[in-house]
Amino acid sequence: MEDRIQRQPASPAVRKRVQDSFDLQSLMSHLGARLAHIGPGLVHIVPPARPEVTQQHGCIHAGATSAITDSAGGYAALTLFDEESEVLTVEYKINLLAPAAGHHLEAIGTVLKPGRTLTVRRLEVHGVQADGARKLVANGQQTLIRVSRPAA
Amino acid sequence: MEDRIQRQPASPAVRKRVQDSFDLQSLMSHLGARLAHIGPGLVHIVPPARPEVTQQHGCIHAGATSAITDSAGGYAALTLFDEESEVLTVEYKINLLAPAAGHHLEAIGTVLKPGRTLTVRRLEVHGVQADGARKLVANGQQTLIRVSRPAA
Amino acid sequence: MEDRIQRQPASPAVRKRVQDSFDLQSLMSHLGARLAHIGPGLVHIVPPARPEVTQQHGCIHAGATSAITDSAGGYAALTLFDEESEVLTVEYKINLLAPAAGHHLEAIGTVLKPGRTLTVRRLEVHGVQADGARKLVANGQQTLIRVSRPAA
Amino acid sequence: MEDRIQRQPASPAVRKRVQDSFDLQSLMSHLGARLAHIGPGLVHIVPPARPEVTQQHGCIHAGATSAITDSAGGYAALTLFDEESEVLTVEYKINLLAPAAGHHLEAIGTVLKPGRTLTVRRLEVHGVQADGARKLVANGQQTLIRVSRPAA
Repeated sequence: MEDRIQRQPASPAVRKRVQDSFDLQSLMSHLGARLAHIGPGLVHIVPPARPEVTQQHGCIHAGATSAITDSAGGYAALTLFDEESEVLTVEYKINLLAPAAGHHLEAIGTVLKPGRTLTVRRLEVHGVQADGARKLVANGQQTLIRVSRPAA
Repeated sequence: MEDRIQRQPASPAVRKRVQDSFDLQSLMSHLGARLAHIGPGLVHIVPPARPEVTQQHGCIHAGATSAITDSAGGYAALTLFDEESEVLTVEYKINLLAPAAGHHLEAIGTVLKPGRTLTVRRLEVHGVQADGARKLVANGQQTLIRVSRPAA
Repeated sequence: MEDRIQRQPASPAVRKRVQDSFDLQSLMSHLGARLAHIGPGLVHIVPPARPEVTQQHGCIHAGATSAITDSAGGYAALTLFDEESEVLTVEYKINLLAPAAGHHLEAIGTVLKPGRTLTVRRLEVHGVQADGARKLVANGQQTLIRVSRPAA
Repeated sequence: MEDRIQRQPASPAVRKRVQDSFDLQSLMSHLGARLAHIGPGLVHIVPPARPEVTQQHGCIHAGATSAITDSAGGYAALTLFDEESEVLTVEYKINLLAPAAGHHLEAIGTVLKPGRTLTVRRLEVHGVQADGARKLVANGQQTLIRVSRPAA
């Protein structure tokens, strides 16, 4: 599977499709998250470590980490499907490994098994310091289902 | 375990401790969530279904659902510990069963196994309509670890 | 959902279908497991606590517990479908809460959400003593997919 | 973390400790599983695809896959601890990606986060054909807790 994942950007049409959907997710903008990379099977979402998304210790809230990770996984899957498809999260599991500190977080989804109906992804979230140093702060696994997009 | 869970409110001291911690979680206020019930082993957190927490279909974003559910589980565990303790989420798994629609969501945590170090909780999220009709929209399981509160 | 689950037995045709499939699972007989109850949406599988399924402390091995629990969930789902259907496990998550000791184990699956494609179940495993005393030793959540049975 | 995992064997003392514990797990020998590699943070357990561990389609039963995977994760963690320690599985989640077919299975555990109390591991199971071709058949994530070994 790994070879389907490329660091190069997706086609302009795919990027537009992902960006348009992201822009409709008002939670993401509300959290200050932005799409940093849209490649085939690989999407980075970057939330800032700003006060609105912190928990009681000043780190990024586990829930915000999860929300962003979940979205990254879903959009990464979406890049692999045609434009008639949408993906919904069936379930996910996440281990919170370290306080989600740093200049920003980077959430990465990797396809373990693509499928006509179900897609399974590995999710990794790294805390990234201003100097670029990275630390794995959460790791998860996610099952997504592809559904047909409702006619406009 | 179930008999440790009571619908009656926790003591004023416990309720204050949970509310104080909640008030420090700026993500929660940012999402418009509030604590609706604090009982021994049982905490309800109610987020409104407002635009800032929705996904592209107008339902509450899975990530917001997760964030609130995770917090409900943690605070429910916290009610069972003394004031020197804090709880951190080790991991959780959640199945998203139906679109999280409704007037508001209600997240409920139930202790499956309390422990000196680890606590395991079942998490349920219900969509509640204005007329009180309820539907299970997500179900999960969460492992928490108790740690000593850092000295002030 | 809960009202679809009944303590009364399933129809003879459903029970035969589940028993026939179970008999083909040589792992189950190899572990000494037997079907103790087949009701609509509810199947009990009882493994004996015998030496071949124990771990290094003499308790039932977590893997055997999981194998039996997974099967109980799958068969419980199968009782709800027509005879052209089979169910496969997509994923599951299990928390091992206490050593799986006792005279036998009882694995119970409960439907949280039945669906045309996916079914989500809660899984509970109890250790049962010779005098009938019960203790929750594991708790899980499982996603199953329905597929058409290959033509014979 | 990854650099703690080495393909070279563990010390003779560590290998003996892991092998001795494995030999006490009668489920493992009952399933025909054997330890194929014991390295620091990395253990391979190889079950044969023999009739006793199959499900109704002749593939290796998901439960046997899980049991072996769970053990591989636990022993891999054990290699990193001193001889006074034991590890117990707190919980795990596994996605079954493909039928577990092949000449044998290979279960691999990788440390994501080692810790004094909790260790989190990624679990991968590959089906290996007689000619060495490999396919990822299951992927999981596991949380383990270290406990002191009871005095003999």
